[in-house]
Amino acid sequence: MQLGLVGLGKMGFNMRERIRRAGHEVVGYDRNPDVTDAESLADMVGRLSAPRVVWVMVPAGDITRQTIADLGDLLDEGDLVIDGGNSRFTDDTENAEALKAKGVHYMDAGVSGGVWGLEVGYGLMVGGEPEDVERAMPIFDALRPEGPREEGFAHAGPVGAGHFAKMVHNGIEYGLMQAYAEGFELLEASELVQDVPATIKAWQRGTVVRSWLLDLLVRALESDPELDDLRGHVEDSGEGRWTVEEAIKHAVPAPVISAALFARFASRQDDSPAMRAVAALRNQFGGHAVVTAGPSSGSGSTQS
Amino acid sequence: MQLGLVGLGKMGFNMRERIRRAGHEVVGYDRNPDVTDAESLADMVGRLSAPRVVWVMVPAGDITRQTIADLGDLLDEGDLVIDGGNSRFTDDTENAEALKAKGVHYMDAGVSGGVWGLEVGYGLMVGGEPEDVERAMPIFDALRPEGPREEGFAHAGPVGAGHFAKMVHNGIEYGLMQAYAEGFELLEASELVQDVPATIKAWQRGTVVRSWLLDLLVRALESDPELDDLRGHVEDSGEGRWTVEEAIKHAVPAPVISAALFARFASRQDDSPAMRAVAALRNQFGGHAVVTAGPSSGSGSTQS
Amino acid sequence: MQLGLVGLGKMGFNMRERIRRAGHEVVGYDRNPDVTDAESLADMVGRLSAPRVVWVMVPAGDITRQTIADLGDLLDEGDLVIDGGNSRFTDDTENAEALKAKGVHYMDAGVSGGVWGLEVGYGLMVGGEPEDVERAMPIFDALRPEGPREEGFAHAGPVGAGHFAKMVHNGIEYGLMQAYAEGFELLEASELVQDVPATIKAWQRGTVVRSWLLDLLVRALESDPELDDLRGHVEDSGEGRWTVEEAIKHAVPAPVISAALFARFASRQDDSPAMRAVAALRNQFGGHAVVTAGPSSGSGSTQS
Amino acid sequence: MQLGLVGLGKMGFNMRERIRRAGHEVVGYDRNPDVTDAESLADMVGRLSAPRVVWVMVPAGDITRQTIADLGDLLDEGDLVIDGGNSRFTDDTENAEALKAKGVHYMDAGVSGGVWGLEVGYGLMVGGEPEDVERAMPIFDALRPEGPREEGFAHAGPVGAGHFAKMVHNGIEYGLMQAYAEGFELLEASELVQDVPATIKAWQRGTVVRSWLLDLLVRALESDPELDDLRGHVEDSGEGRWTVEEAIKHAVPAPVISAALFARFASRQDDSPAMRAVAALRNQFGGHAVVTAGPSSGSGSTQS
Repeated sequence: MQLGLVGLGKMGFNMRERIRRAGHEVVGYDRNPDVTDAESLADMVGRLSAPRVVWVMVPAGDITRQTIADLGDLLDEGDLVIDGGNSRFTDDTENAEALKAKGVHYMDAGVSGGVWGLEVGYGLMVGGEPEDVERAMPIFDALRPEGPREEGFAHAGPVGAGHFAKMVHNGIEYGLMQAYAEGFELLEASELVQDVPATIKAWQRGTVVRSWLLDLLVRALESDPELDDLRGHVEDSGEGRWTVEEAIKHAVPAPVISAALFARFASRQDDSPAMRAVAALRNQFGGHAVVTAGPSSGSGSTQS
Repeated sequence: MQLGLVGLGKMGFNMRERIRRAGHEVVGYDRNPDVTDAESLADMVGRLSAPRVVWVMVPAGDITRQTIADLGDLLDEGDLVIDGGNSRFTDDTENAEALKAKGVHYMDAGVSGGVWGLEVGYGLMVGGEPEDVERAMPIFDALRPEGPREEGFAHAGPVGAGHFAKMVHNGIEYGLMQAYAEGFELLEASELVQDVPATIKAWQRGTVVRSWLLDLLVRALESDPELDDLRGHVEDSGEGRWTVEEAIKHAVPAPVISAALFARFASRQDDSPAMRAVAALRNQFGGHAVVTAGPSSGSGSTQS
Repeated sequence: MQLGLVGLGKMGFNMRERIRRAGHEVVGYDRNPDVTDAESLADMVGRLSAPRVVWVMVPAGDITRQTIADLGDLLDEGDLVIDGGNSRFTDDTENAEALKAKGVHYMDAGVSGGVWGLEVGYGLMVGGEPEDVERAMPIFDALRPEGPREEGFAHAGPVGAGHFAKMVHNGIEYGLMQAYAEGFELLEASELVQDVPATIKAWQRGTVVRSWLLDLLVRALESDPELDDLRGHVEDSGEGRWTVEEAIKHAVPAPVISAALFARFASRQDDSPAMRAVAALRNQFGGHAVVTAGPSSGSGSTQS
Repeated sequence: MQLGLVGLGKMGFNMRERIRRAGHEVVGYDRNPDVTDAESLADMVGRLSAPRVVWVMVPAGDITRQTIADLGDLLDEGDLVIDGGNSRFTDDTENAEALKAKGVHYMDAGVSGGVWGLEVGYGLMVGGEPEDVERAMPIFDALRPEGPREEGFAHAGPVGAGHFAKMVHNGIEYGLMQAYAEGFELLEASELVQDVPATIKAWQRGTVVRSWLLDLLVRALESDPELDDLRGHVEDSGEGRWTVEEAIKHAVPAPVISAALFARFASRQDDSPAMRAVAALRNQFGGHAVVTAGPSSGSGSTQS
């Protein structure tokens, strides 16, 4: 089938390639002239036969909302827009409403897989009307990994459900990564375990903790055995925050996912205001700043 | 080669079978007459030719320590004892010292894989002297999964390192399980995601969170889609506690692993004393117990 | 001075009394005829001389927003509305904007103290224009505790700052309560400490942990030494959630406040879906459900 | 009465002064010649009349254990040793046993108050035999704050109970400090609250969060309004760790106290190995290191 694809960055570029390999026709648009197929969004739309299907794969937030609004102006009744970016699921209802006024259909798709997706395929969670899911299925089948469809694709529910599922997926991902990371640090801290990379590599087969993330950790350790080529400053991209916010909204305890999120926040602080406050409190009752009369003594302790 | 195997429970029983399938001779001993090969520990030792290798696979703690002490009385100089149970790594040094006095060698082996190990193989992390590792390698090769040795087996370091690595493995396991569990609860709580089992099943291929534990979760959901055949009371088996204790000893922040551990503690409480204290405090300043003079009013709020 | 006061529940009823004791005139309105001074909101407004000051003390959320909207219809240019309820600070900007269109001024006031405020006074954090703060200062002085004004009253910033400060106050409160609660539970669990209420009572003077909340805990223990007259099911009222949400928005790590919040969520669950998922996973790899061929053995262990 | 006091550091020095002010005779010993009363431990013991009472106030751990062992050699049957340092409660049983062999009595005392204790008095939690408690009561009365004895002193239980109670006290203290600290950081991060020190100062009267620690925070903010004279690197002194370890031993969930402890650990790390592992994982699936073929594009996103 024919697909319009807006956004040809790391994700979209590879997705275009994978969809083409499956025999479909893709007209891609990106503002970067080196990678785009069309000269403009309008040009891209013009090259597609109605009823059109357009996949939006641009950074979440304002850019996505604007792109979808622009598409609303260009598309016709019966066309279908799929937002495959990491948008917040709450955007989906608004997008769907706005497009519906013009008779344009809307679906949301959570897409997982990173740069590995080109070869391995992408995990897909979609939200929308059954008939729209059906219409886009050839594209989903092209993108998803080999194997049974239901192991790499789910129609999770109505509009928004795809992004909600992807949000939760990423929240889980935060927790998984932090669990491995704490284990790595503890192995590093131990004097007993002498070959940390080999120990972690040995977890790849037969163990309970084997996973794709573990494979990636092994891979990272192979090129950088103490992981000291990079700094421990870790960004967060939105889904972790939204997951905790949704957990709060639904009164779901989320101690692990929130701990993983806060560890990222802390990792980016050169100096923590909170810990300065703790230091200041210790200073106050320990009296380092206020005791001037008392003699210092090697054998004495200050107790809180 | 020839192996003595003490303990033929769920783990040891399957391990005997897997080792035999690899062509080795196993003399197993268990106090359960239905499964044992030997009539007594002494009988088992007597049936092995020196230098002997004896694998201990009994519940960690006192039983393991006692079994190893008994073996010390029965074995000869040059024999090798391998503790494959979930013992605390601090036991290993003591066991090794005690046996060394009699010239008996000692190794520790962390074994992962559960009931799946018979078919899939067991992930192995061992601690001990290189020559002892070498001697037992045919057994390790029989137990570990197919594939490159280093992806299912590691010589992590000296005596104790195997159990330390297994302890950390299980600590990570706690964190991973809790991360999936929080995600599951949030999906269940959402009104958007209508087919939770299908959504989780779709994470098996292509996604970042794909793992063996995820496969097990899918399997569980297939037979019990809302997981309501069981109660959310979860035991902990030692390694999670030890991991947090070691993290504390080494000043390693372990917010995720400890949160997973505490979630298990809390899951087993019918009523939490701590939360009764919080309730009592709210009661005190909210004044539900003390305000008798003031009129109740539907439109009024009590604020802390 | 003269004040209109809407909402005469536990908080508002006592506040009217405290303001009157300070010599001011209060016209209170509550839909409960037993406590109200006026027959309607309009009646209350009608009894006040312009420029009027009206304090709103009704449950946060829709009721507050509706009450302020109704006041907007009744009040005149130059009048001042103060929202003293536990409203989310984000409501304040909207309320202020809506009233501003009619020339009505707006302030927000965070009020702390619970049922003790009548005698002790209320801690106050307000947000608004300096001239509005000045105008209402006689009321603030009546409500706040004895002592230096700056120890019980702060003009925290523009509109919204008062509720923001109160929100953070309550977030801290969650953390403090949980810290005491965990300590209480650990003392209870110990076989060493034989008189838990006496031990906690002894912290009231000289120690680092002495506080008003500690005094309340002592008070609770005096009437119920094991705190078993109540159940450990704890509600949360909004501010704790908002605090964590704001922490996330500002990338501020809040592990303690979020842990306290999640402990409340968990306290209200009869059975935790997340912990059912953990139990299901353990079941899968421990094989309690799947192993049928293997013999059970008292001396064997199943290891993950 | 007469007291021997070993250790005249910040705590012991002030305690000697407070006890003397109450009219008792104190023979202090410290290895620092500027503050000591006696030339040696033996000299101190020699100056006391039997039955003697000796208070040990030296840094916890090896120094305390050695000091108590030395006292065991010097003291006579019927004498009493009180360990007032921050020793782990598990040391107390051993100390008591060792001294008991010589007929020397032993008590443990948890002492709280820091440098403020000289003027305010010290909160005391003691463990030991009732007759020993009775014998030392004049000293306890001298040290504890004014007011009812039971508000600043508790006989918590047998030997060890005093240090156990102090350990829990300090664990709570960690949680309280972290709660205030998180609130401080969030207030600082907000653009709404313009005067953070004034806002926190206003919590001192009437609010739920008023406490001595809050008073100290106000004091710290008065001399350093943004708390930037110091760095957010915070030590931990043992009790916080022990509290979490005991919580684990008793299966008591301690999410807040452990979070506060881990925040201190993290505060001392220049770069976190765990967060380097998380960064490495993101790098692996985000492909920053591995994607060389794909073109970079400003409008594309990489999704996990």
